[in-house]
Amino acid sequence: MYQLTKEERNGVYKAIFNRRDIRSFLNIPIPDDKLYNLLEAAHRAPSVGFMQPWNFIIIKNDEIKKELAKIVEKERRALAIHYEDTDRELKFLDLKIAGIIEAPVTICVTCNPFSGGDHVLGRNSIPETDLMSVSCAIQNMWLAAYAEGLAMGWVSFYKKSDVRKILEIPYHIDPIALISIGYTDNYPDRPLLEIHNWEKREQLNRLIFDNKWGTNEVRTGLSD
Amino acid sequence: MYQLTKEERNGVYKAIFNRRDIRSFLNIPIPDDKLYNLLEAAHRAPSVGFMQPWNFIIIKNDEIKKELAKIVEKERRALAIHYEDTDRELKFLDLKIAGIIEAPVTICVTCNPFSGGDHVLGRNSIPETDLMSVSCAIQNMWLAAYAEGLAMGWVSFYKKSDVRKILEIPYHIDPIALISIGYTDNYPDRPLLEIHNWEKREQLNRLIFDNKWGTNEVRTGLSD
Repeated sequence: MYQLTKEERNGVYKAIFNRRDIRSFLNIPIPDDKLYNLLEAAHRAPSVGFMQPWNFIIIKNDEIKKELAKIVEKERRALAIHYEDTDRELKFLDLKIAGIIEAPVTICVTCNPFSGGDHVLGRNSIPETDLMSVSCAIQNMWLAAYAEGLAMGWVSFYKKSDVRKILEIPYHIDPIALISIGYTDNYPDRPLLEIHNWEKREQLNRLIFDNKWGTNEVRTGLSD
Repeated sequence: MYQLTKEERNGVYKAIFNRRDIRSFLNIPIPDDKLYNLLEAAHRAPSVGFMQPWNFIIIKNDEIKKELAKIVEKERRALAIHYEDTDRELKFLDLKIAGIIEAPVTICVTCNPFSGGDHVLGRNSIPETDLMSVSCAIQNMWLAAYAEGLAMGWVSFYKKSDVRKILEIPYHIDPIALISIGYTDNYPDRPLLEIHNWEKREQLNRLIFDNKWGTNEVRTGLSD
């Protein structure tokens, strides 16, 4: 088969465990070769029936970034209304927006449900596997960003129709993520939402069942 | 910030580039600690609003594996009807099924759209971000499997209602993937669907746009 060295194996787990969703970036450009490494990593993701339903719109233009930030800000304000009566700390929501302006590169990742033709193997049974494939590509990109010493943030506060209009994306294409990429001097060791007491990490043991839903055996050896 | 060593960085890219969807497994059990490493990796995936919508049903019971294989086989036969008049090689479709019986462990990965409560941050805008989060978890699991010298296959040929019935999964929970895990002596260096001339890998350069959809600049430095 194959065998990673101990250090290579550590690299995989370090990337998986330390990857964070970053919202503040330094005003330093990203070398193209590093950016392409991220996109290559994304493109090597699994896809149902090998349909490769992803496209990547690389946005460096400041005017377009401002337009995107504007519609994200609109959505953030609309969203905040639903949290008015809660005691959850909302300040950090602001961070979510600044990233798009600060980061030297924004990538709009899209999903094309028609990229594999009429009968994509496996997608006939579960149509949303196209979206799942693109999500795997985004995760690859995130881990590659970590490997390159870059920070990445995934913004999902927007109306797709607004993003389609700004980036001239056809109706049949789904803009599923706005990704900020850049360097940062603010790389937290835990998820932002955990630091801000928004949510806690679940105990893994409680998320695992044995043979049937709802059946928990006693388990040792798990970190949580 | 942080810095991976060159070898650690190589490990990340090796896992991303060499990860394959495997369909044939050896009759060798998996140590629990390795299995848990995969689940820990999955649980460290990003999730919208930190909702952690995933559960993992670990199936080692042979009777249950047979029941799952049966419904997957039913779906494969139904699917094959759509390819009757094409010249695509269908033999390898058989492989897809054997994996579930052969692999010592099958994991049903599910998505719980209600795990974060009523107002999950970011999910209000794009509801399918729950599914995307679980997909990132599956990709983490896949890369961790590679790091552990294990093989993984993702089966998406089934009716969700059939899987719900066999595994006693409630209606509101989505069984989005059946994952086979095990050792293999058949680890291809290219995707099975490429080897079988089902689909080719797209040229990455053609999937990238600049600032707007459909705008391609001349680009160098990409592998394709």
